[in-house]
Amino acid sequence: MASHHKRVIAVVGSSKPAAATLELAREVGRLVVASGCSLVCGGLGGIMAAACEGAQQAKQELLTSTPGLDPPQVIGVLPAADKAAANPFVDVVIPTGMGYTRNALVVLAADAVIALEGGSGTLSEIAYAWQFGKPVAALVPSGGWAARLAGEQLDDKRGDRVFSADSPAAAVTYLIDRLG
Amino acid sequence: MASHHKRVIAVVGSSKPAAATLELAREVGRLVVASGCSLVCGGLGGIMAAACEGAQQAKQELLTSTPGLDPPQVIGVLPAADKAAANPFVDVVIPTGMGYTRNALVVLAADAVIALEGGSGTLSEIAYAWQFGKPVAALVPSGGWAARLAGEQLDDKRGDRVFSADSPAAAVTYLIDRLG
Amino acid sequence: MASHHKRVIAVVGSSKPAAATLELAREVGRLVVASGCSLVCGGLGGIMAAACEGAQQAKQELLTSTPGLDPPQVIGVLPAADKAAANPFVDVVIPTGMGYTRNALVVLAADAVIALEGGSGTLSEIAYAWQFGKPVAALVPSGGWAARLAGEQLDDKRGDRVFSADSPAAAVTYLIDRLG
Amino acid sequence: MASHHKRVIAVVGSSKPAAATLELAREVGRLVVASGCSLVCGGLGGIMAAACEGAQQAKQELLTSTPGLDPPQVIGVLPAADKAAANPFVDVVIPTGMGYTRNALVVLAADAVIALEGGSGTLSEIAYAWQFGKPVAALVPSGGWAARLAGEQLDDKRGDRVFSADSPAAAVTYLIDRLG
Repeated sequence: MASHHKRVIAVVGSSKPAAATLELAREVGRLVVASGCSLVCGGLGGIMAAACEGAQQAKQELLTSTPGLDPPQVIGVLPAADKAAANPFVDVVIPTGMGYTRNALVVLAADAVIALEGGSGTLSEIAYAWQFGKPVAALVPSGGWAARLAGEQLDDKRGDRVFSADSPAAAVTYLIDRLG
Repeated sequence: MASHHKRVIAVVGSSKPAAATLELAREVGRLVVASGCSLVCGGLGGIMAAACEGAQQAKQELLTSTPGLDPPQVIGVLPAADKAAANPFVDVVIPTGMGYTRNALVVLAADAVIALEGGSGTLSEIAYAWQFGKPVAALVPSGGWAARLAGEQLDDKRGDRVFSADSPAAAVTYLIDRLG
Repeated sequence: MASHHKRVIAVVGSSKPAAATLELAREVGRLVVASGCSLVCGGLGGIMAAACEGAQQAKQELLTSTPGLDPPQVIGVLPAADKAAANPFVDVVIPTGMGYTRNALVVLAADAVIALEGGSGTLSEIAYAWQFGKPVAALVPSGGWAARLAGEQLDDKRGDRVFSADSPAAAVTYLIDRLG
Repeated sequence: MASHHKRVIAVVGSSKPAAATLELAREVGRLVVASGCSLVCGGLGGIMAAACEGAQQAKQELLTSTPGLDPPQVIGVLPAADKAAANPFVDVVIPTGMGYTRNALVVLAADAVIALEGGSGTLSEIAYAWQFGKPVAALVPSGGWAARLAGEQLDDKRGDRVFSADSPAAAVTYLIDRLG
């Protein structure tokens, strides 16, 4: 029997981003789900909530356009032990009670990672994505650690680079291509 | 905006159960999803795979009978860091790379817990369900730690007891009633 | 070069025990350290603090009687992310920020486990000790889950039993003998 | 009663560093312990083992020069669940079974962090140190992510910067001063 689980793309980024980044995050969320992938993130606010909102919107469109579809899901891996902390766009809440240590689990739940803007929390997630061997795309127009690491080879354990993406579409297209 | 996440019921039990327990687990899985709840488990074999198989079957029936439905999901919280370890009936794979320490995370992801048969791993999950304040039902006919703890008050931090269930239907009905 | 790390014995038990159990816990702590082993526990109050207090007392005696000794240590693996939560008798504080999920880490840090009294938290730790293959001794006079599981084979993955100990000395002697 | 636990400084860095970095790491280890602090690291090889070796050497000197002292400890927080993976200079082994997710726990166990050289693993640890509010010093001569982040403010959640240290002594002196 074929496995039922779908490709999953993580979105990592600031909880208090610039307004322009929120629109980028919504677009990333829409494109991830419209392409048939589930989305995972840290389940809280800012870039996380915006990506989930876009993903939910795309999911509702898929449900309407394709009756009987088992749709992609919006997954939130929370720092808290309590589900109530999840933003309202999350379908599957994974409360960890592990605080920021859950950053590693957000990345492990994904097959590939898109980074937007981002401070030290996002930096730890990009570093984990690299360590865990996941393809990473960074949205240059969002600024932050995403922009700083775009195009970089984080260490010599991998031969590729953080993909430097000019737009949400470029990031999603690159990762889906990498996942094959 | 209303939250999209559904009630989640965990199924915990042996990875190498008696054959009769597997049928009970499949029935539990079917009933959990038929009642509109998602199912979470450790994502591996034995009782976990049987519960996921029943849950997938019920999900496919829901998708056929209710076009446009956003169906309940089958969630597996794995000990491994690699998604490939999940049984083929899992929709949403959460690899933790934390070994048995992930038992706590299986329980945290649930609103209520059903135990079948079970050795020391299941015992740790029942204990965590109690600590985390989740309602627990134990299937008496399955034997193991589930049967031994059915009807027990594990400590005085809670006033209720592990519900002693004679059948999958009794267990699921009790928990859905508790969740309100 | 020989490894510097010492044998470590975990003490697991209630945070709000009966007064008589506190004296048993202090005696366990004293004996663990007097026998040259380090002690690990959850680092908080109740049985944990009493065991740490006894262990510190024995350590101070060793330092006086054996100048130049590198003494056993009192290790606390905390649920909180903040060291300030440790009881004052802990030497080495390991804050996890993982809540009760850290119970597994307390057990992993040990070569063997002694249980006193105990509710559902202690039950999860005894279950983990069994899963992780660590020898376990349970102090029967302390009551609680320790007394209930004394003499039991928790599942058939192991051929031994939870050692039924009538006294702190019996528990410590048994475990040190098992560790060889 | 005063708390028994000592200040703890983490050393983070590559498991396969340049030879020159190993000597810097040994010197860092020596200075941390000679100043009365315990040392924590990931417990494996490369920079971790070199720092532990220097720390053990300083500890043995303290034990000789100050009979009756309860000396600083060398703590290793391992990715594996098995203590045998620790390098031979570790006193207190904390096996986590959590893989790289334990990077966060290495940092949580410390009051301050020194980074040498380093690839993506070290990058995640520096990011966590920043998130968790721990003072960080980076050894510029070691290269790697340590050198790249020296002098940087990783995000605006903190007003300070990663301290740019020219030598082990500068790094240790700065952090002990910060810890007060």
